[in-house]
Amino acid sequence: MSVPPSGIVTLLTDFGLSDPFVGIMKGVIASRFRAASVIDLCHGIPPQSVVDAAFWLERSYGWFAPGTVHVAVVDPTVGSARTILAARAHGHIFLAPDNGLLAASLTGPGAELRAVDASRLGLPPPSATFHGRDVFAPVAADLASGALAFADVGAPASARPCVLEAPRVEAEAVHGVVVTIDHFGNLITNLDRRALEAAGARRVCVGEHEVALHRTYADAAPGELVAVINAFEVLELAIRDGSAERRLGLGRGTPVSAPVAGRVLRA
Amino acid sequence: MSVPPSGIVTLLTDFGLSDPFVGIMKGVIASRFRAASVIDLCHGIPPQSVVDAAFWLERSYGWFAPGTVHVAVVDPTVGSARTILAARAHGHIFLAPDNGLLAASLTGPGAELRAVDASRLGLPPPSATFHGRDVFAPVAADLASGALAFADVGAPASARPCVLEAPRVEAEAVHGVVVTIDHFGNLITNLDRRALEAAGARRVCVGEHEVALHRTYADAAPGELVAVINAFEVLELAIRDGSAERRLGLGRGTPVSAPVAGRVLRA
Amino acid sequence: MSVPPSGIVTLLTDFGLSDPFVGIMKGVIASRFRAASVIDLCHGIPPQSVVDAAFWLERSYGWFAPGTVHVAVVDPTVGSARTILAARAHGHIFLAPDNGLLAASLTGPGAELRAVDASRLGLPPPSATFHGRDVFAPVAADLASGALAFADVGAPASARPCVLEAPRVEAEAVHGVVVTIDHFGNLITNLDRRALEAAGARRVCVGEHEVALHRTYADAAPGELVAVINAFEVLELAIRDGSAERRLGLGRGTPVSAPVAGRVLRA
Repeated sequence: MSVPPSGIVTLLTDFGLSDPFVGIMKGVIASRFRAASVIDLCHGIPPQSVVDAAFWLERSYGWFAPGTVHVAVVDPTVGSARTILAARAHGHIFLAPDNGLLAASLTGPGAELRAVDASRLGLPPPSATFHGRDVFAPVAADLASGALAFADVGAPASARPCVLEAPRVEAEAVHGVVVTIDHFGNLITNLDRRALEAAGARRVCVGEHEVALHRTYADAAPGELVAVINAFEVLELAIRDGSAERRLGLGRGTPVSAPVAGRVLRA
Repeated sequence: MSVPPSGIVTLLTDFGLSDPFVGIMKGVIASRFRAASVIDLCHGIPPQSVVDAAFWLERSYGWFAPGTVHVAVVDPTVGSARTILAARAHGHIFLAPDNGLLAASLTGPGAELRAVDASRLGLPPPSATFHGRDVFAPVAADLASGALAFADVGAPASARPCVLEAPRVEAEAVHGVVVTIDHFGNLITNLDRRALEAAGARRVCVGEHEVALHRTYADAAPGELVAVINAFEVLELAIRDGSAERRLGLGRGTPVSAPVAGRVLRA
Repeated sequence: MSVPPSGIVTLLTDFGLSDPFVGIMKGVIASRFRAASVIDLCHGIPPQSVVDAAFWLERSYGWFAPGTVHVAVVDPTVGSARTILAARAHGHIFLAPDNGLLAASLTGPGAELRAVDASRLGLPPPSATFHGRDVFAPVAADLASGALAFADVGAPASARPCVLEAPRVEAEAVHGVVVTIDHFGNLITNLDRRALEAAGARRVCVGEHEVALHRTYADAAPGELVAVINAFEVLELAIRDGSAERRLGLGRGTPVSAPVAGRVLRA
């Protein structure tokens, strides 16, 4: 099930863009593989938030060509003995610390998992604080160029369970949480289309609010709260032309539920 | 007046960089046109601010090679029936929602305008919330690669008037507004060099302040307010080594005027 | 000691990413040298902070291939008569305003320095406010493509002393300062490994705090202050899983010292 490399490397980190950390990773990649196309998935993951990274990596990688190497570095325990995982799944390769960042769909049946062995790859001993530069970047470059075969990355391994929770389906309602919040202040949840449609859900409850599910933001009046199934196939709560995060004062982890068709959650 | 594609695609959005929206657009573009050069014009347009986007797109595109495809997505009514426009003007191609984002110089005499017809292009039905990924990116990729001819994008169309206001020339003074505010807190106006020079303007009034027009920031003392005609040929108000936005407490839309030579606006 | 161009241009500025300034520089570079690889080192240098730029440029460039052109624009006196320097050192080329941004190691023995002469290069007269676009970008493109030889950039020149201070070694302790603060709120100092090891330093004093030097963040408990020698070979103060900047309320310029082995600084 080996796919030829696309030559593309994506980067997903909590490094931000105020320092040259990401730029230096790109320098290392270009030094080893001059023709690499490096694409920033994003570097605005809230510091140390493995949940946000896990969500966005799983929902994003499919928009890239098969054979792409996806590097995800949200790594609070950098420098400790934690493993760096390489996973091959669905024709893509993923590199991430073994801290629950890789979604179940990337580590389950059909996936191959290996523990990156930096010493075996001839890399100099990594620094204690910047494995993005010292391990992730050179390994990604070599996988993307084809200089390194996936099977040579290190020994077979298994992955810790993903930090993402699945929606909880109960008799009265489907229950989930706000997983991430986007740049517009939209609240993005783990309630996916399948769970909502199975329940025949038409309405959504969050905090003190209950709103109807609509097709698009433009179905709401400006300033109004609207619930849609977004372009990533999960429930999203938005204020038309505004920020739901600021207006509702709700954050990551807030419970969200959708009553099963015919049920009324708040009687 | 057809120019061969440069292979370059620029992106201008209000998506920010905290989520992978921009990265995913690049993934889609690379999947259709591997050799594309995608350049971020910027993604820091304030959410839903079509004015800022209109200003920067018009003032920026000329610094790119002819044959470049410029994608501008500030699109509060995504998912509604609003048209996506393709414009060909001055040797460049522009894609934008039909919401007044395209400057008059890009849609007026000599420009060709078409309404993007996603279905005619064989694209899958777009999501309701992310046309940047589902329509703009693939159309831009195909135009940039040459796989899609401009004339095949869709039917001829016309554009809504641009949201940018022209400066108002009166007997006593030229009147304008703050159009955008840059990263340094400089207030950038719609008073362009031509209007200022025609009036022989030497001084500028904004809020409670009246200042002389200078050639460069360094003509002011540190901490002092200075007015210059900036590198985009419009009047800019800056605090030397500081933020005019914060210091003066002024924002977008603030009136700015320049008395005609020999006139005194505030007697 | 001439190295063939790598074709890579790095950009380090205080322009931020909320406006198209950086994008326009890339447009100019691509217009002159279509095959250039432009890598953002970073654009989040605090406005006008030459110290942050000097630190990161010196600590970053070595991760790029020799023959790379590094453009650093933190330039409060843009438009005045200040010189733009081109330096060739350690197989790399650097372009920066002559305001102390270039580290001593880039301008000292073995380095070649020239004053960029835009007129001699056939460039149109630059604007008063955006030399990044009008001078730095075209010169960098031409140096990176090989169209312009380093010796043809302008006349030999000398550089102002760098704004970075060296650590001060005294009998009791090595003294330094916080030079920059990263995205995680880690306080990064000018106390380098060599100075610390020469002193046999085991502990560090900052503000009211005294902490042991550890190898990695993970050696501290969550929420605890930790001092490490970071991946850039200088002392860094961090709060495990938190922000030292916010927690300690300390900023750039804060004195930091490391008692010489066997000495106790605070008796």
